[in-house]
Amino acid sequence: MPEQFVHVLNGPNLNLLGTREPEIYGTTTLADVEAACRAAAAGHKLDLVFRQTNHEGELVEQIHAARGSFGVVLNAGAYTHTSVALRDAIAASGVPTVEVHLSNVFAREAFRHHSYLSPVVRGVICGFGLNGYVLGIAALAAARPTLP
Amino acid sequence: MPEQFVHVLNGPNLNLLGTREPEIYGTTTLADVEAACRAAAAGHKLDLVFRQTNHEGELVEQIHAARGSFGVVLNAGAYTHTSVALRDAIAASGVPTVEVHLSNVFAREAFRHHSYLSPVVRGVICGFGLNGYVLGIAALAAARPTLP
Amino acid sequence: MPEQFVHVLNGPNLNLLGTREPEIYGTTTLADVEAACRAAAAGHKLDLVFRQTNHEGELVEQIHAARGSFGVVLNAGAYTHTSVALRDAIAASGVPTVEVHLSNVFAREAFRHHSYLSPVVRGVICGFGLNGYVLGIAALAAARPTLP
Amino acid sequence: MPEQFVHVLNGPNLNLLGTREPEIYGTTTLADVEAACRAAAAGHKLDLVFRQTNHEGELVEQIHAARGSFGVVLNAGAYTHTSVALRDAIAASGVPTVEVHLSNVFAREAFRHHSYLSPVVRGVICGFGLNGYVLGIAALAAARPTLP
Amino acid sequence: MPEQFVHVLNGPNLNLLGTREPEIYGTTTLADVEAACRAAAAGHKLDLVFRQTNHEGELVEQIHAARGSFGVVLNAGAYTHTSVALRDAIAASGVPTVEVHLSNVFAREAFRHHSYLSPVVRGVICGFGLNGYVLGIAALAAARPTLP
Amino acid sequence: MPEQFVHVLNGPNLNLLGTREPEIYGTTTLADVEAACRAAAAGHKLDLVFRQTNHEGELVEQIHAARGSFGVVLNAGAYTHTSVALRDAIAASGVPTVEVHLSNVFAREAFRHHSYLSPVVRGVICGFGLNGYVLGIAALAAARPTLP
Amino acid sequence: MPEQFVHVLNGPNLNLLGTREPEIYGTTTLADVEAACRAAAAGHKLDLVFRQTNHEGELVEQIHAARGSFGVVLNAGAYTHTSVALRDAIAASGVPTVEVHLSNVFAREAFRHHSYLSPVVRGVICGFGLNGYVLGIAALAAARPTLP
Amino acid sequence: MPEQFVHVLNGPNLNLLGTREPEIYGTTTLADVEAACRAAAAGHKLDLVFRQTNHEGELVEQIHAARGSFGVVLNAGAYTHTSVALRDAIAASGVPTVEVHLSNVFAREAFRHHSYLSPVVRGVICGFGLNGYVLGIAALAAARPTLP
Amino acid sequence: MPEQFVHVLNGPNLNLLGTREPEIYGTTTLADVEAACRAAAAGHKLDLVFRQTNHEGELVEQIHAARGSFGVVLNAGAYTHTSVALRDAIAASGVPTVEVHLSNVFAREAFRHHSYLSPVVRGVICGFGLNGYVLGIAALAAARPTLP
Amino acid sequence: MPEQFVHVLNGPNLNLLGTREPEIYGTTTLADVEAACRAAAAGHKLDLVFRQTNHEGELVEQIHAARGSFGVVLNAGAYTHTSVALRDAIAASGVPTVEVHLSNVFAREAFRHHSYLSPVVRGVICGFGLNGYVLGIAALAAARPTLP
Amino acid sequence: MPEQFVHVLNGPNLNLLGTREPEIYGTTTLADVEAACRAAAAGHKLDLVFRQTNHEGELVEQIHAARGSFGVVLNAGAYTHTSVALRDAIAASGVPTVEVHLSNVFAREAFRHHSYLSPVVRGVICGFGLNGYVLGIAALAAARPTLP
Amino acid sequence: MPEQFVHVLNGPNLNLLGTREPEIYGTTTLADVEAACRAAAAGHKLDLVFRQTNHEGELVEQIHAARGSFGVVLNAGAYTHTSVALRDAIAASGVPTVEVHLSNVFAREAFRHHSYLSPVVRGVICGFGLNGYVLGIAALAAARPTLP
Repeated sequence: MPEQFVHVLNGPNLNLLGTREPEIYGTTTLADVEAACRAAAAGHKLDLVFRQTNHEGELVEQIHAARGSFGVVLNAGAYTHTSVALRDAIAASGVPTVEVHLSNVFAREAFRHHSYLSPVVRGVICGFGLNGYVLGIAALAAARPTLP
Repeated sequence: MPEQFVHVLNGPNLNLLGTREPEIYGTTTLADVEAACRAAAAGHKLDLVFRQTNHEGELVEQIHAARGSFGVVLNAGAYTHTSVALRDAIAASGVPTVEVHLSNVFAREAFRHHSYLSPVVRGVICGFGLNGYVLGIAALAAARPTLP
Repeated sequence: MPEQFVHVLNGPNLNLLGTREPEIYGTTTLADVEAACRAAAAGHKLDLVFRQTNHEGELVEQIHAARGSFGVVLNAGAYTHTSVALRDAIAASGVPTVEVHLSNVFAREAFRHHSYLSPVVRGVICGFGLNGYVLGIAALAAARPTLP
Repeated sequence: MPEQFVHVLNGPNLNLLGTREPEIYGTTTLADVEAACRAAAAGHKLDLVFRQTNHEGELVEQIHAARGSFGVVLNAGAYTHTSVALRDAIAASGVPTVEVHLSNVFAREAFRHHSYLSPVVRGVICGFGLNGYVLGIAALAAARPTLP
Repeated sequence: MPEQFVHVLNGPNLNLLGTREPEIYGTTTLADVEAACRAAAAGHKLDLVFRQTNHEGELVEQIHAARGSFGVVLNAGAYTHTSVALRDAIAASGVPTVEVHLSNVFAREAFRHHSYLSPVVRGVICGFGLNGYVLGIAALAAARPTLP
Repeated sequence: MPEQFVHVLNGPNLNLLGTREPEIYGTTTLADVEAACRAAAAGHKLDLVFRQTNHEGELVEQIHAARGSFGVVLNAGAYTHTSVALRDAIAASGVPTVEVHLSNVFAREAFRHHSYLSPVVRGVICGFGLNGYVLGIAALAAARPTLP
Repeated sequence: MPEQFVHVLNGPNLNLLGTREPEIYGTTTLADVEAACRAAAAGHKLDLVFRQTNHEGELVEQIHAARGSFGVVLNAGAYTHTSVALRDAIAASGVPTVEVHLSNVFAREAFRHHSYLSPVVRGVICGFGLNGYVLGIAALAAARPTLP
Repeated sequence: MPEQFVHVLNGPNLNLLGTREPEIYGTTTLADVEAACRAAAAGHKLDLVFRQTNHEGELVEQIHAARGSFGVVLNAGAYTHTSVALRDAIAASGVPTVEVHLSNVFAREAFRHHSYLSPVVRGVICGFGLNGYVLGIAALAAARPTLP
Repeated sequence: MPEQFVHVLNGPNLNLLGTREPEIYGTTTLADVEAACRAAAAGHKLDLVFRQTNHEGELVEQIHAARGSFGVVLNAGAYTHTSVALRDAIAASGVPTVEVHLSNVFAREAFRHHSYLSPVVRGVICGFGLNGYVLGIAALAAARPTLP
Repeated sequence: MPEQFVHVLNGPNLNLLGTREPEIYGTTTLADVEAACRAAAAGHKLDLVFRQTNHEGELVEQIHAARGSFGVVLNAGAYTHTSVALRDAIAASGVPTVEVHLSNVFAREAFRHHSYLSPVVRGVICGFGLNGYVLGIAALAAARPTLP
Repeated sequence: MPEQFVHVLNGPNLNLLGTREPEIYGTTTLADVEAACRAAAAGHKLDLVFRQTNHEGELVEQIHAARGSFGVVLNAGAYTHTSVALRDAIAASGVPTVEVHLSNVFAREAFRHHSYLSPVVRGVICGFGLNGYVLGIAALAAARPTLP
Repeated sequence: MPEQFVHVLNGPNLNLLGTREPEIYGTTTLADVEAACRAAAAGHKLDLVFRQTNHEGELVEQIHAARGSFGVVLNAGAYTHTSVALRDAIAASGVPTVEVHLSNVFAREAFRHHSYLSPVVRGVICGFGLNGYVLGIAALAAARPTLP
């Protein structure tokens, strides 16, 4: 079986994770998230691409780059609520995508309740912190057909 | 360690699962969901209460009955979008609750994009069919403190 | 030809019919409605199930129970305007359903102008009092294929 | 007993019926509608005026012309959603009017869910195709006082 | 001094005036309105064109025909609230126009509170019945420069 | 003078009173409320019916059952904001009804600012905790005509 | 015949008339308005009370003071759009009131299109500058019953 | 125990009470209200300040003047719906305040359903006429700690 | 190859073109538009039908008449924003239609930003004055399959 | 050079400054504000008028009184959000005006995010407490042309 | 005559053209678009700059770079609906700009019906696929003054 | 005392300042702004970082880079109205930030009245052109604690 990659893509300000508004996000850092994702991917016999960017255009291109892969776990951060370009990139990529948020966005400001991405992803997971990424990888893996 | 129960509660019309709008929900039955939940709970050393009702008031009371338990996985179906009573029951119960939907509600009619429950639950998982329940149980279990 | 049932289902407060706000509903009682429906059903060679409930959950289950029948004439009363659960029940039941209202709901308060049910029923009849039920049964009967 | 007329009035584009968007309206033609209305009116001992126009102003005047008649069955088509002039004509005419639509307007675009006419008509019937006209004539006839 | 015409233009359903909803419009007929306008115009040394139509397109053309005249008193009736075409006709005509309504439209249904015409007319007069036309002619006359 | 009953009816989650969100509702239990109501009713020479239910349909029927009584004090809890059925039940019951809320609903989430019930009750009292019920009974009693 | 007074009441900033935003209001001063009103009132055999205030409360009291008079011509200026107190004062005063605006408010900012006063006055006149007051007095006078 | 004052403050147009729109407010005068408040205050061993003003600014200052008192019963009339200044005055005063309305504001025009004051008062009482003031004083008194 | 017609249809007030609001539309007349269209059609080997009407109903019928033709270039003027009847006519006609506007409607009043027609036409061209018609004919011609 | 005055005008409840909601406004008093403004004005060689009122009408007149002065620094408090009269006064005054708020109004309730005044002032400064006034005076002074 | 450049600028995801959602965009690639643009530009004696970027900031800078050129044909893709920065860049650039969309955006999701760009461009062309670019270049060329 | 930096950050299109829409922004260039900021910072004994970018992601990162500095003066230009990412960056940075706009945004298009940034900055200054930056630096400096 050839290598299969899951792309875990992170949007703006997530590089500050653990240093930022700990009452909302806790003290977990992005390195912690990556470590947990690596472990989870390995557990599902998947390779991992793990990236972060503050640029909407780069996030668009990282989704383009994931075309043909096993799947995408996407925490687009603030761009979730403002980016039609990301929505179009997901729809165009054709790769199964899971939308993840660290916090429960529905318990925060009203403008965070709307996601341009949700209608075009496979599913949404929010509120479970770092573990949401792990669940997202599991969700993708669970849809993998068993090999004979 | 005493027994710990996770309550999986299902709302209106879910008794018809597998017989209803298969283009949205597929052919999985509620018995399939229960079996998957039992397996998942057992894997996490948890006991399971699995219930379904078409009555808003009963669902309120099932949440009351889950007070003090390990957690609730709640698929409130249509009541998600119309019931303040359920929201109040969750807030009053004080038990960790995961909101689950079989389908990706954000890809359906606009009135399904709003949930009265989301702001008071721990997290939301939608779009992964039966597997969403399994992920919900995992999300609850992942928050369990390790015993010494 | 086996018996064919039309289910006439009535929602909250309709048990008070004839005793309630006569300037809107007149003095017709629910027994009068039932009698007219029995006569109309008989005229179309149909058997009748006639039920009333004040409970949303029971109305959901009465629609479930009508699956496979000839059709449903549904006056969901106030739940028309607030119940997604009923809408889902109708969509799931797959049985032809006619939405009926005694009064012309569009001539009343603005919140009565919106129906969660209308988009999933076959058709809507309102404003004709008791006779709306008779027309609803006729509408269902008119769609019956002629036997050879 | 003098002749009593029911006026069946049809609005814009209904002249194309049967040639237009058959997935919504089927293959019934306006001549079919007229024939069914003639039969229905005859069955109720009523004479029929059957008209169609694409002009809002003419439809207003056709309603004026129906003053004093037994009743109006009105399928105002697109003008239903945009014409206050028709609403005023109905209110001014004082003749019992039934609003009819071939399709279930509530299952179509949002702008078709609002009718300027509904608050001033006796009742509304939609979704039953050609048969809706027949039901509309029946609804008018059912309100006729029995002669001694 | 050459003849100067004031055009008094009336929209849909105003031909029924005096026979229609007397609790709102009273028993004044359109002939009464015309007589009062003739008297008022004569008092201001103006000739009168007095017209009524139920057709939006004709009303547009009557406004076109009034170009170069002394002024227009326009009771567009229901088209006030729905016609951008009339608004454009007034703006294009360049003739001073007074918008008149018999009833106080602001004390009626909400959709009558908005006028597409008001922003492009010289002024608005409503609520004074037949006398509103007389005031409208006076308003136009008052703006006439005194001859030396 | 025959016995006169005041019905004090409580809606969903009020059975948890005193155990639920004490920062909003305090530590008063429903038994405390009942005791205070009994004392207040007795002070006004009234008998008391005191009930609680989590079911919308039951609350509808408890209002039906109060027809002909001295009055109703209704804390419909969450159903206040979502139930047209309750509104219709109050309007149909014809019994004087006081809407009561323990907390000041206007100082809470926006969806709690709207009540379907307020337009059909005699008056509203909110924000005074348990004492609101006592004031509600007093308000009903104050409207009692003095016996000669 | 005893003296009959018409009260012409002016709201905030109208004391600056003629010095303020001449592109909207021209160079007419409030003294000019008063002179025109005195002439118009005299022409109708009416006495005049002419007042201006920048205080909402004083305007309320000036309307109270006009109770029992022949009528009120009210240019409430900016309070037109924000004052429920003035609306209540007009409704409570029971005196015929004409709402007047110098400019065509419907051709200005959107917040000037709504008037709290319009639904409770006899009629509205706007856009005719100083002459609007004269027309308002004429409108009141035209409603005076002829003495025998 | 030193004297304790309850301030009963009345807003615009309430000086006309009993002479104004009796179908809404009845024939009770403001003097009747004051008498009832004096009796109620005396019954609770409280002194009374009773004031009325039509001026928003004065009402603001009357609330300032009530700082440190036992409490305020405030019927702000029309300013309830338009005054942020009153809201700020109440919040700044720190004195327990009860919002009272004679009529059931929720059964009247939509703009009366919103109160700027409700979120910052202790509670709201409406619909009970003069008796609402009495209940408001009772509500304040019920919160008084018992002296040893 | 038989003759192929392109229908260029113009709505209300376009007969005034060149005489109307030149700051928006310039001095081009409708005859200029026709001449340019004739030249463009000839260049594409197409015959031309060129019509203008101020009547919504006639415009509906002109679209009906274009069924089976090569295509329609439609400048519906003000009816663009208010006519569902035109939308239905276009959908029913099945003929390729290009929506054209002389001015850039998106740079004008907000109510001109919405078109009932746009969702059912092939494409939209606005802002290029007379040249927009030429581009519209070119757009239709570009879709013509090359003959072998 | 003659004296030049800057008018610092304060609206409702600002007389309570320092005693009111210290978590929002701190302990600065209005006397502190005045002292800081005097120092700042003196630093710019300007004289100072410093006023406070709780009355909208007085604030309107204080702005009128500032006509011809060097400039106005206006903290209209709650009237910022509700007063069209103030807006008109500023526009009519023609004096350069700076809108100042002590707190960051955009971080507070939604109704404080809208200002009727902002579109007609020169600029807005908010969130800097007492120092905002000092900056406002500096902003006015910075626009003063240098004398030769 | 010096060289004149038309800049054809393409926004996010357009690099995927032909590989993306063919039911909406067909199989045309961006290379096909460029070839068609080169041919069209050459036909109008214009040079071509053809660029694509997924970055909003780069698109802003590409518009800056087009200042002084013959014109811009801009397909901003998803940024059309979300970018005020692009709008400001177009307004600041002062270069004639044509907004182009491949698909008929008005027949797609509601959020695609609004463009921040349309009010500041010369005109809009949508729905004609690749040919829209060709029409856009023609529209720019048609506005070129003829050289003597 | 170590060096303290104030970061002045400028968003999209500000590089064109002085060449762009002079009726709104005047002829000041960004170099002028920088010079004024340098002078102001020096006056407050602060060092200056002065940057401009058209890229949202870079602006996010420039804010990240300012963490720990004395403060930020941010003119985010068009991103003010569309960027949640910037808002999150400011909130995460924890550095005192002043939002500055050259023009009075509240006197421009409605979409410029909303800022995603305002609720998370210390204060807002707009309408004072280049001087707004100087005031922003002064506002930051005024909050500096005096050294002993």
